[in-house]
Amino acid sequence: MPDASIPSAGPVDPALIEDLVAANRILAQNGVLDAWGHVSIRHPNNPERYLLSRARAPGLVSAEDIMEFDLDSNPVDPKGRRAFLERFIHGEAYRARPDVNAVVHSHSPTVIPFTVTDEPLKAISHIASFLACGCPVFEIRDVGITQGLLVTDSKQGAALAKTLGDKPVALMRGHGNLVVASDIPRVVHRALYTEINAQQLATALSFKRPIKYVEPDEAQDPKRLGDSWELWKTQAMQGA
Amino acid sequence: MPDASIPSAGPVDPALIEDLVAANRILAQNGVLDAWGHVSIRHPNNPERYLLSRARAPGLVSAEDIMEFDLDSNPVDPKGRRAFLERFIHGEAYRARPDVNAVVHSHSPTVIPFTVTDEPLKAISHIASFLACGCPVFEIRDVGITQGLLVTDSKQGAALAKTLGDKPVALMRGHGNLVVASDIPRVVHRALYTEINAQQLATALSFKRPIKYVEPDEAQDPKRLGDSWELWKTQAMQGA
Amino acid sequence: MPDASIPSAGPVDPALIEDLVAANRILAQNGVLDAWGHVSIRHPNNPERYLLSRARAPGLVSAEDIMEFDLDSNPVDPKGRRAFLERFIHGEAYRARPDVNAVVHSHSPTVIPFTVTDEPLKAISHIASFLACGCPVFEIRDVGITQGLLVTDSKQGAALAKTLGDKPVALMRGHGNLVVASDIPRVVHRALYTEINAQQLATALSFKRPIKYVEPDEAQDPKRLGDSWELWKTQAMQGA
Amino acid sequence: MPDASIPSAGPVDPALIEDLVAANRILAQNGVLDAWGHVSIRHPNNPERYLLSRARAPGLVSAEDIMEFDLDSNPVDPKGRRAFLERFIHGEAYRARPDVNAVVHSHSPTVIPFTVTDEPLKAISHIASFLACGCPVFEIRDVGITQGLLVTDSKQGAALAKTLGDKPVALMRGHGNLVVASDIPRVVHRALYTEINAQQLATALSFKRPIKYVEPDEAQDPKRLGDSWELWKTQAMQGA
Repeated sequence: MPDASIPSAGPVDPALIEDLVAANRILAQNGVLDAWGHVSIRHPNNPERYLLSRARAPGLVSAEDIMEFDLDSNPVDPKGRRAFLERFIHGEAYRARPDVNAVVHSHSPTVIPFTVTDEPLKAISHIASFLACGCPVFEIRDVGITQGLLVTDSKQGAALAKTLGDKPVALMRGHGNLVVASDIPRVVHRALYTEINAQQLATALSFKRPIKYVEPDEAQDPKRLGDSWELWKTQAMQGA
Repeated sequence: MPDASIPSAGPVDPALIEDLVAANRILAQNGVLDAWGHVSIRHPNNPERYLLSRARAPGLVSAEDIMEFDLDSNPVDPKGRRAFLERFIHGEAYRARPDVNAVVHSHSPTVIPFTVTDEPLKAISHIASFLACGCPVFEIRDVGITQGLLVTDSKQGAALAKTLGDKPVALMRGHGNLVVASDIPRVVHRALYTEINAQQLATALSFKRPIKYVEPDEAQDPKRLGDSWELWKTQAMQGA
Repeated sequence: MPDASIPSAGPVDPALIEDLVAANRILAQNGVLDAWGHVSIRHPNNPERYLLSRARAPGLVSAEDIMEFDLDSNPVDPKGRRAFLERFIHGEAYRARPDVNAVVHSHSPTVIPFTVTDEPLKAISHIASFLACGCPVFEIRDVGITQGLLVTDSKQGAALAKTLGDKPVALMRGHGNLVVASDIPRVVHRALYTEINAQQLATALSFKRPIKYVEPDEAQDPKRLGDSWELWKTQAMQGA
Repeated sequence: MPDASIPSAGPVDPALIEDLVAANRILAQNGVLDAWGHVSIRHPNNPERYLLSRARAPGLVSAEDIMEFDLDSNPVDPKGRRAFLERFIHGEAYRARPDVNAVVHSHSPTVIPFTVTDEPLKAISHIASFLACGCPVFEIRDVGITQGLLVTDSKQGAALAKTLGDKPVALMRGHGNLVVASDIPRVVHRALYTEINAQQLATALSFKRPIKYVEPDEAQDPKRLGDSWELWKTQAMQGA
């Protein structure tokens, strides 16, 4: 599948790569990413390329693990590195959503229960108000029986991106979620608070009383994420 | 909004600032404060001034981040530092409550479910007996639709303080809480045990049996908090 | 209350004091003891004396904090050290139970919900089979209204010991528990697994299906606790 | 019981022993193994022998603690080391299942609630799809009343292995579980994700809505576990 003839979109600012590495570490440290899952960014020089770690646990990812892919998820210059089987999630999300520059795929632990019931995952906290319109749920059986429930080709990736539509988060039945945003701090914020909102909503649901979800007319993306990013990155990169 | 003509109430004992910094770290370390949220104290020399960190994640706050504000929440001498958008929560709490010298605003995770249902958050443990009379819930929609549910001006802050009344804790629907006390160790104790009591009450509620709340005639503030403060501060400032 | 005329039962093997200190640290590290709560042992030379830390957070206790008390809970030689208000829990437990040589009083977090409902706390796991006969619940209101729900004199302590009877654990409504055993490793084991069994039982109860508790004829105290004690002590004293 | 006449199957590659030690540490660090529980491997040179730590908390196990046993669970050369009372779980699992080369016995905390109710523990996440066919539950009372619920002889061990059948995981009522696999990384993966799936399923069940379990036709063992093993081992052996 690697094709030596795919030209690279060129070198990337090391500070951006450092932030991509930090995003992997942050989401691992906060329990959103387990030994699998991944974070990618669109290449700043070419919207037809994206950057993603070689197949490696996110908590161990370093700058030298970052590989370049085209939107068919072919590696540009693999140098013998193994690519994630599910990289097609990223390629197809970038293809379908020109507004998206950062993508997370996770097995976010408390999100899983919402993927296997018809209990909707919606925002109950202002920090998670990006979830005010709810999360569509991707049923991979609709694309055909898939052993392991993995998204391992462009057709499956495109079906997932279609389920996502114009939303920030799609749930994947029995698997996890897909989170997209315009930049790294925002996609980390969304992946993290999808998990936290899921935990809080599970508790609220246990009260068996009506729930006041955040209304769409109250939703607002945080204007800046510099303060939280400073904290998350500092904590995640300590001793790295 | 900063007004160079606002005179400072003067320097503050570094030991008090150290305790304010410790309060930020303690509540961050114990998961009450996330990347946002804040702790303030009333200025010991002038009841019309309060001290609050510049806009920064509480887990990273240091002595040099502490700024002085008047009760309209204008910074006295910002020196280019950015102030929290929601500082009006503090200014209006100090204005409305002369007995209050320390204020916490948090997104306390297990408090959120109680803010979005009508399940009352009341004390089930003697350490949280300050909650024996329950917590009023602030509905920001009553002041007008607010994108992001943030308290960003004096009018909203005053409405929140009015909801608080003479209580130690007010819940903020879909957002978090406001905790007030006479001093730093007490406000830390209250913010921490509001969260812990919420966790324990959520478990007790799951049994679906009648609950024996702490009765108001049994409630008693701890006479001293020196032992817990020694532990919390020691643990929070390790390696700081 | 300190009475200089109370003779000491004499010095104690430093290894025993070290284990008492370790017990404090272990239960703090494992979240059974918060900033309060305490662990004591009966004096090996005199059954009318017990050893308990001065008033200090258990996570910070060191050998020099250990004080000696008689069974009326008078300190033998306080040397200006402040004693726990609730030491009467210990004195009266030793008086009522000659078989007991170690006592823990805690605010064990997941035990609290069982103290405020009539849901019984019984063993569902073999490691907690000491709970197979259930836990009596102490209602301090039966001794008279008590602000703060604290056990601060011998009368209240004796009423609690009477509720305990011949059991290993008594719950204290809205407060925590009292755990007794023949030695330090065993009282630590019981305090720890009362909490863990409470967590597991809360989950089992949430299924709303019949529960198979450990039957009294299946209960068995572990014959030895050397392996767990080695682990707990090693982890708790790291860096101490 | 030790019999000097049992010949050893010979020395084992230190890298395999290192992985066995790592497996103990990983499952302890992740809260699957508490102060008890154990991990073993079949001897690579002789299917009638297995390797298991001497009686010691898994979080403290080192290479020199590993002992060799025959399938009757007699130690080959104990050198005065004490063996686990419950080693018969391992011996009988290896006897009954020639396909198995690694065995874990744990008190996995969130598995316990599923052992004491008839709520089935089945996969809701693709990572735990080895649980798609459910877990049989071993009722030790069927073999006779057992104080402490421990499996301490070959007869009980064989009954447990019979309950396990050809499955990867058997639950043990009021006790924990038995997990088997073809190699160390796989048995660690299974023990870890049995716990995580139990946590997620408990949350899903609390919604009181129909659950979409992973269907048997969707189940698939991960083809490789190198990436997760690299992470788990790195984290567990830090500072070891």
